[in-house]
Amino acid sequence: MSKKRVLTGITTTGIPHLGNYVGAVRPAIQAARDEDTESFFFLADYHGIIKCHDPAMIHASTQAVAATWLSCGLDPERTTFYRQSDIPEIMELNWILTCITSKGLMNRAHAYKAAVQDQNAEGGGDHDQAIEMGLYSYPILMSADILMFNANEVPVGRDQIQHLEMARDIATRFNSRFKPLFTLPEAKVDENVELLVGLDGRKMSKSYGNTIPLWENDKKTQKAVNKIITNLKEPGEPKYPGESPLFEIYKAFTTPAENAEFTRLLADGLAWGEAKKLLAARINAELAEPRERYAALTARPAQIEDILQAGAQKARQKARGFLDQVREAVGIRPLK
Amino acid sequence: MSKKRVLTGITTTGIPHLGNYVGAVRPAIQAARDEDTESFFFLADYHGIIKCHDPAMIHASTQAVAATWLSCGLDPERTTFYRQSDIPEIMELNWILTCITSKGLMNRAHAYKAAVQDQNAEGGGDHDQAIEMGLYSYPILMSADILMFNANEVPVGRDQIQHLEMARDIATRFNSRFKPLFTLPEAKVDENVELLVGLDGRKMSKSYGNTIPLWENDKKTQKAVNKIITNLKEPGEPKYPGESPLFEIYKAFTTPAENAEFTRLLADGLAWGEAKKLLAARINAELAEPRERYAALTARPAQIEDILQAGAQKARQKARGFLDQVREAVGIRPLK
Repeated sequence: MSKKRVLTGITTTGIPHLGNYVGAVRPAIQAARDEDTESFFFLADYHGIIKCHDPAMIHASTQAVAATWLSCGLDPERTTFYRQSDIPEIMELNWILTCITSKGLMNRAHAYKAAVQDQNAEGGGDHDQAIEMGLYSYPILMSADILMFNANEVPVGRDQIQHLEMARDIATRFNSRFKPLFTLPEAKVDENVELLVGLDGRKMSKSYGNTIPLWENDKKTQKAVNKIITNLKEPGEPKYPGESPLFEIYKAFTTPAENAEFTRLLADGLAWGEAKKLLAARINAELAEPRERYAALTARPAQIEDILQAGAQKARQKARGFLDQVREAVGIRPLK
Repeated sequence: MSKKRVLTGITTTGIPHLGNYVGAVRPAIQAARDEDTESFFFLADYHGIIKCHDPAMIHASTQAVAATWLSCGLDPERTTFYRQSDIPEIMELNWILTCITSKGLMNRAHAYKAAVQDQNAEGGGDHDQAIEMGLYSYPILMSADILMFNANEVPVGRDQIQHLEMARDIATRFNSRFKPLFTLPEAKVDENVELLVGLDGRKMSKSYGNTIPLWENDKKTQKAVNKIITNLKEPGEPKYPGESPLFEIYKAFTTPAENAEFTRLLADGLAWGEAKKLLAARINAELAEPRERYAALTARPAQIEDILQAGAQKARQKARGFLDQVREAVGIRPLK
């Protein structure tokens, strides 16, 4: 009972790439192996539909994200792994929290403020014109995701710290107005988290078009790696970190000793093309087994569905009784 | 299948009084007897918690409102009679609709604008300071209530017409963005609806403190009726409509012929006190049987709960399959 509850949500609006693997999937699965931690992982499809209005992508992404985590070693027995839309209790809690959230709090959310700024830049009259309520109120849904399971800790990027503070605000207000039911969650910003750089040296991101695929075959991995920018140095010329993102990407897949060796080889004049072969080989070696599992899972999506259903059952067992307490605190309970 | 679907929600934040009975309960139950109508009645407890933060009142009101409708003749076999919080599908639909509702639409809602005006009048800096998100976004929840059952018609007061238009806007946007699943509901403003006047001649309303109780005994009804304002005319002096709300209240419980007779008696000099005895007797006669049923029901709340559970089952049968279609339209469906 004294285990620390850690909750991680993954939005289902894309197909995971190598940057997601290095920056999120691999470290989270590692952290979930900690004996003192009770981990919750969920596919945030009801967050996905806020910005993604392409039903086929929502569906494809849900499958790809689920298969990614399972293939990379997430243990659905040791963790609680579920799809947000399978837990209606979260949507109910979302409304209860909506009723105690100050509108002023939402006005201050970064994501909303950024959207308003974009609107203003376009010179529209009504600054709310193209903004939808999902974007505006999603910090409440995020609070419901977290508070539903009384998570102690939520690993987040810096941009999400504010939303965690909002979840604490909302929980505090409920606790003082009705009954102290909610645990105040803490944001955990891991300063050491590896943010993989992309082909062009910027952060690897779908929106920059600079990604290396995660689930393609060895050949396609090599093809993507070949696009990593370098300079025009010839084979034989010494090459140094800072001249190509290659060094940093390689580092994400090796031990410090192996990385030092790689750096030495390039300083000694290894050709960029040869270095790219070494990198692709490392990536392909690390992903060989996960890729087999991924192929097997995506060939039988019903098997993923079964795992998600079992996870939903586990999650709902925790959610149901707690939601009943929350409902009772606001006056909603059976007549008897 | 071609029956007209009419949906009525009742917020659970108070104990029904005689004004609610005359203005809402009696005519709605009458209308539900129409063979061409399929009626949905629900206890809107998730609307109740927007403004009422008293759990005991939410609970007591839920029981009183349910018992009121049942005692006054609502037939749970012929209608679908349920408690909003028993239908998690509505909360899920609420979020899906939130994701397609323009924030600008909510900015224009009367209830929100009125609250902002109150804030401004108090001279606060942030005009959203004391406004909570439940008040701001409740037109979306109201849309979910209506669209969940594809209601054709929603009987409303004039102040609610705007919210119905919002429900149509939201439905239209979903239909064009994803799939034409939603029926566009129509507001039905009944110009002939009897709005009972209170003891002081203003509209009978809890907030004016001018109500006549519905479920008290004959003696307490007489006591309340005795407080109806009159002038100082003595017995024997002719008394006319316009001199007391007594005339209007009497009219709500009699045939036109009986009403004419009452008017004649007063014109002939009937004492105010005698007239009040006649009125209380009419009210008590009409409510005698309902009051017996109300007492029996409230003595066994579990019986009301059973009726609500049966209603929830009926409502969820309709809601579940339809929600699955809505979910699928936005990309949320099982992997297979």
